[in-house]
Amino acid sequence: MNKLSSLSSVKDIKNMNISDLNNLSSEIRQFIIETVSETGGHLASNLGVVELTLALHKVFDSPKDKIIWDVGHQAYVHKIITGRKEEFKTIRQYKGLSGFPKRSESEHDIFETGHSSTSISAGLGLALARDIKKEDYHVVCVIGDGAMTAGMAFEALNHAGDIKTNMIVVLNDNEMSISENVGGLSRYLNKIRTEPTYFRMKEDIETILNSIPAVGKKVFKTAERAKDSVKYFLVPGMLFESLGFKYLGPVDGHNIKELINVFKRSKYVEGPVLIHAVTKKGKGYKPAEENPDKYHSASPFVIETGKAKKKNSVKKYSQIVGETLVKIAEKDEHIVAITAAMPSGTGLDEFKEKFSKRFFDVGIAEQHGVTLAAGLATNGMKPVFAVYSTFLQRGYDQLLHDVCLQNLPVVFAIDRAGLVGADGETHHGVFDLSYLTHIPNMAVLAPKDGNELAEMLKFAINYNGPIAIRYPRGQCADLSYLNKNNKIEYGNGEILKKGKEIAVIAVGRMVEYALKASNILEKEGITPTLINARFVKPVDKKLIKKIAKEHKTIITIEDNVKIGGFGSKVVKLLNDIGYEGNVDVIALPDKFIQHGNVEQLFKENNLDVDSIANTLRKKFK
Amino acid sequence: MNKLSSLSSVKDIKNMNISDLNNLSSEIRQFIIETVSETGGHLASNLGVVELTLALHKVFDSPKDKIIWDVGHQAYVHKIITGRKEEFKTIRQYKGLSGFPKRSESEHDIFETGHSSTSISAGLGLALARDIKKEDYHVVCVIGDGAMTAGMAFEALNHAGDIKTNMIVVLNDNEMSISENVGGLSRYLNKIRTEPTYFRMKEDIETILNSIPAVGKKVFKTAERAKDSVKYFLVPGMLFESLGFKYLGPVDGHNIKELINVFKRSKYVEGPVLIHAVTKKGKGYKPAEENPDKYHSASPFVIETGKAKKKNSVKKYSQIVGETLVKIAEKDEHIVAITAAMPSGTGLDEFKEKFSKRFFDVGIAEQHGVTLAAGLATNGMKPVFAVYSTFLQRGYDQLLHDVCLQNLPVVFAIDRAGLVGADGETHHGVFDLSYLTHIPNMAVLAPKDGNELAEMLKFAINYNGPIAIRYPRGQCADLSYLNKNNKIEYGNGEILKKGKEIAVIAVGRMVEYALKASNILEKEGITPTLINARFVKPVDKKLIKKIAKEHKTIITIEDNVKIGGFGSKVVKLLNDIGYEGNVDVIALPDKFIQHGNVEQLFKENNLDVDSIANTLRKKFK
Repeated sequence: MNKLSSLSSVKDIKNMNISDLNNLSSEIRQFIIETVSETGGHLASNLGVVELTLALHKVFDSPKDKIIWDVGHQAYVHKIITGRKEEFKTIRQYKGLSGFPKRSESEHDIFETGHSSTSISAGLGLALARDIKKEDYHVVCVIGDGAMTAGMAFEALNHAGDIKTNMIVVLNDNEMSISENVGGLSRYLNKIRTEPTYFRMKEDIETILNSIPAVGKKVFKTAERAKDSVKYFLVPGMLFESLGFKYLGPVDGHNIKELINVFKRSKYVEGPVLIHAVTKKGKGYKPAEENPDKYHSASPFVIETGKAKKKNSVKKYSQIVGETLVKIAEKDEHIVAITAAMPSGTGLDEFKEKFSKRFFDVGIAEQHGVTLAAGLATNGMKPVFAVYSTFLQRGYDQLLHDVCLQNLPVVFAIDRAGLVGADGETHHGVFDLSYLTHIPNMAVLAPKDGNELAEMLKFAINYNGPIAIRYPRGQCADLSYLNKNNKIEYGNGEILKKGKEIAVIAVGRMVEYALKASNILEKEGITPTLINARFVKPVDKKLIKKIAKEHKTIITIEDNVKIGGFGSKVVKLLNDIGYEGNVDVIALPDKFIQHGNVEQLFKENNLDVDSIANTLRKKFK
Repeated sequence: MNKLSSLSSVKDIKNMNISDLNNLSSEIRQFIIETVSETGGHLASNLGVVELTLALHKVFDSPKDKIIWDVGHQAYVHKIITGRKEEFKTIRQYKGLSGFPKRSESEHDIFETGHSSTSISAGLGLALARDIKKEDYHVVCVIGDGAMTAGMAFEALNHAGDIKTNMIVVLNDNEMSISENVGGLSRYLNKIRTEPTYFRMKEDIETILNSIPAVGKKVFKTAERAKDSVKYFLVPGMLFESLGFKYLGPVDGHNIKELINVFKRSKYVEGPVLIHAVTKKGKGYKPAEENPDKYHSASPFVIETGKAKKKNSVKKYSQIVGETLVKIAEKDEHIVAITAAMPSGTGLDEFKEKFSKRFFDVGIAEQHGVTLAAGLATNGMKPVFAVYSTFLQRGYDQLLHDVCLQNLPVVFAIDRAGLVGADGETHHGVFDLSYLTHIPNMAVLAPKDGNELAEMLKFAINYNGPIAIRYPRGQCADLSYLNKNNKIEYGNGEILKKGKEIAVIAVGRMVEYALKASNILEKEGITPTLINARFVKPVDKKLIKKIAKEHKTIITIEDNVKIGGFGSKVVKLLNDIGYEGNVDVIALPDKFIQHGNVEQLFKENNLDVDSIANTLRKKFK
C-alpha cells in the first residue's frame, strides 16, 4: 500500500504517471474490499469505478472543477482520495462517514445524491450559475447506464442539449442497474459496446461515408439489416447526438491512459459532451464480478470465499411478499408484478422466474411503473408494484393522478418503510404515511409481523381500489406467540392486550416495540391497553371511540415523521369526538435523520423500547 | 352541418370517403370554434387534431381498439364523434362534460388523463394486459411533442421499445407545448420536419444507401455537416428507432388520406411503432393559428375578432409574481427564474424577455426543473421556480431529496393552488399544503391578497432555505382597505380583527371569504376574531397560544384537503398545549373534486361565504 499510504492530498494524483495510477488502483481496490468486508457497503459499484475516478481527478481540478456522482454509492474511491482515507473504516456507521456524497464532509462533495438520475440536472444548474457569474471551470456528472433510464435524466439531457453550455457527462456503462439493466436504451448501448466496429472511434466521417455502399452491398442482404447496421456504424452515439450532445466513446473504463485522453479531449468540446465509458461492476474481486447484484450492497463478508459473515435464518419481509405473491399468482392469472430495477431487493426473484410474462422490470422508472400498473389495472389485471418507500416518492403524482383518481385496484407493496439504517437520510422511508394518506381513495396498511404481512397482501389483492402496505427493511418480527387471529378486515385495528388508564396504538414495526415496552411496565404493575392499528387509512374510528371512553390517555407510535402521519389523524379524530383525555404522538421529528444502525437511530429519536417505556411510565404518574 | 348533424354513431365514420371526412372536418372545426367561443376551453390543441382524430376512428375500431389521449385537452373531436355532440355545449361546466377524457362519460374514454405524458405508460399497460389475456386489438396513444419532453414518456418508450409488444404511438408534433417547445428533442423533430428530404418517406433503404456518397461529397463540405445530414437523412426517426420503435413518418397531420394510409400500415407492424404526424395548433382559425399559446386555453371570445368577451382590469396573482420578480431581478443578479413550459401562464413573460440569460424554460419537466434549481442554488444563485401546484406534484421527490435535504434556498412560486375551476379534478391544486409541509426544512406561505403576495415573494427571496408561496389561479383579492402592515416576519400570522368567543384562522384566499362571512355575522351582532395565517409552516405557535387563551372556539379555514393540511397542524398544536375549547377544521373533503365554476365548487363543499357564516353562526349558539 505504498501509493495509497503516501497519498496526502488529491493533488498528488496529478504527479503520478500511468504506472503509478495503475498501482494505486490495485491498492485502493484492495483497501475497499478489506474495509467493506468488515463494514458492509456498496462494493461492486465502487470496484467498477476505481480507474475512472483516478483519471477524473488526474485531469480535472476538484473542487474548482465540480464532480457530481449520480446516486453516489460509487463515490468511495473519490472519498478515499479526497482526504477521507482514515475515516473510511467508519463508512455508513452511526456518526461515521456517509455512504453517499455529503457536502458537510468535504469541499469535494459538490452536490448530495442518493436517489438516482439527479446529477445531470444538478450539474446543468451548476454550469448555468457558472456562466451567469462568468466563472471558468468544468462541471462533470458521472452517471450509470441504469440511472440513465430514469425520466429525469432524459429531461436534463434534453434541456442541456438545447442550451449548449459546456458540461461533461460521463456515462458509466456497466450494463447494470442494481440488477441487470433493461430497456431500449440498454439494448442500444449494448449494441455500441459489443460490435467491434463501434470501438474504432473514427473521427473522419467522410471516410466512413465513402465506405458505406460496399459494406451495405456486400455484407448485408436485406434493407432492414443494412439500415440497422449503417446507422449505428456511422455514429455510435447518435441517440445522444440527436439530443444535442457531442458523443465521445466508447472507451474502456479500466484503461487509465485511454480515460485520461478522452477526459482531456472533452475539456475542449464546445457545448455538452457525453463520454461513454464501459466498466465492469465488481471489477477485481471475483465473487463480485460474477454476482454484481449480490455485491451491490453487501453485508460483511469473508474475503476468501465471498460468503456473508452472518447467516440469518429469519425470513425477511421482502421474502414474505415474494413467496405470498407466488402462491397467489399460481391460482390467479390476473396477478402481475412490477419492479423498478429491484427484482431481488423486493423479493420478486422467484415470481420473475415462474411468471416471466406477468413480471415487469421497468428499470429505474417509478413514474412509469405506477402508470403502467394503472394501465394494467384498467384492462383487468391486478398489478402489485413492489417498491421501496423512498423511491415511490418519485411516483407520487402518478399515484395520485393515474391510480387514485381513477380509483384503480393497484397494490403497492412498500418495502424499506421507516428507518432503513446505514443508507441514511436519502433512503429512510419515513414520509410514506404522510404522502399516501392525504390522497383520496387510498387505503394504507402496516403489518405487525411477517404473518400479518402475508394476510394483508392477500387482503389487498382482493380489495377493489388503490391500496398500500408498508413494511420495514430486513427480518420479520414474529408475534405469532400472541395467538391472535390474523384475519384482516377493512378499516379494523386489533386489540392485542386489554389494560387500563392508557391505550397505546402502534403502527407496523412499532407494535413489537410497544409490546416490549408494555412488558417492562407490567413488571412494575402497570398494564396499558395495546392496539395494533393495522390500517393507517382509514383510521379505525369505531375502535378508537371505544378506547377513548375507557382510557384517560391515548398514545400513538409510528416510525414516520410526525407531520401528516398516523398520530395526527388520531389526534384529529379524538378532537372531533370531543375526547377530554390526554393524547400523545410518538413519531419521528420534523428533520432528516442520518445514517446508522436502526436501533441507534430509534434511540436517538426516543422510539426505542426503553424510551417508549419511559414515555408511558410518565403518563401513569 | 350536414355531415355532423347526421352523424349518429362513431361507426358512421367508417362509411365516409375522404371527401366526406374533409367536409366533416370543416364542420367539426366550426362547431368547436362556435362552442368554445361561448364556453371557453382548450381551442388550439383541438383544432390541430381534427383530421387526425377522424382518421384514427376511420382506421381503428374504438372501443375495441383502445385510443388514449395524452393530457386529454385535445379530446374534444373524439368526444363529439363518440356520442357527446349534444352535451358538448356543457363542456368544462359544473355537472357538464369534462374537458378531459372521463371513463364515466363514455366507453370510448379508455384512460383518464390531465397531466402530461402518461399515455405511453398507460397504453403499454393495456397492451400487456391484452397479451396476457390473449386478446386481439390495437392500443393507440396520441401524444404531443411537448408531452414527449417529460421524463416519464421516455421511461415508457424505453420499456416499450424493449419488450416489443404491439402498440402504436402517434406523435402529434405541433412544435408547441402550451408555449413554444424547447429542448434537444424539439430541435431534432424540427430538423426532420423542415428539411424536405425527410418528407419523402423512403422505404427502400438500399436505394438511399447507394445515393449517400454522392450527396455526401457534393453538397456538404465539412465532415461535421455531412455527419449531421447523413444521419438524419438515412433514418429520420433514428432516435425512436434506437430505443426499439419502428418509426413511420413524418406525415402531414391534416391530410386525411395520408393519415389513413399510415395508420393502416401501422396495424401490420410487429412490435411498437411510432407515427410522426405534423400538425398545426389552432388550424383553421386564424387568431389561434397566429397565437396558439393564447388560444391554448381560451376564455369566451368574439369569433370575428378573436378578442376575449370579458376584459378584466384586476391584476392576476401570476402577474404580481412576474412584475415583482422583474423588479427584484433588476437589482439582484442572483435571481434566476424557472418554468416548466409555462412562461406565460406563470406570469414570467416579461422576465423571460428582460433577463433571457437568467430565465430557464425546461419544458414539461418538473423533476428536472426542481433539481436544476437545486444545482443553481448550490452555486450561489437564488432560483425561483414558478409552477402550478398540481404539476409540482411531479417534483415531490426532487423537492424533498434535492432541495430540502440540502436545505437549499430555492423559492417555489406555486400558482393555481386551491380549486382551479373548469379544468377540474386533474388540475385542482388542493394537495400542496399536505405534500409540502411534512418535508423537513420547508417553509410554506399563502398570501391573503395581491399586495401580500408581492411582500411574501420579497421575503422568500431573502430567506435562506427552501420556501414555497402558494396562491390561487386568477384575479387578486385586494384587502388593502384593511390598512394593515404587510411586512412579513418569519413564522408570524396577522390579526385582522379582534373579536370574542370564536377565533377564525384562515389561509390565503380563504382570508377574504372568512372576512366576508364575519361581516355577515357582525350585522347579527356577533364578532369573531379573524386571523390571516400567512405561514402554514411553521405554524405561528405564539399567536395561536395567545388566542387559545382568549377564545372558547377556534376554527381554521383552508382550500386544501383536510388530511395533512393547515387545520390538522393547528389541532395538533392545540392538543399539545392542552387547549380545552372547541376546534373545528373547515377544508376540502377527502375526495377528488370535479370541474365547474370555483364558486359552485366552494358552495358544494361548504367553503363559500354563506356556508362559512353558517358554520360560525352555529358555534355561537
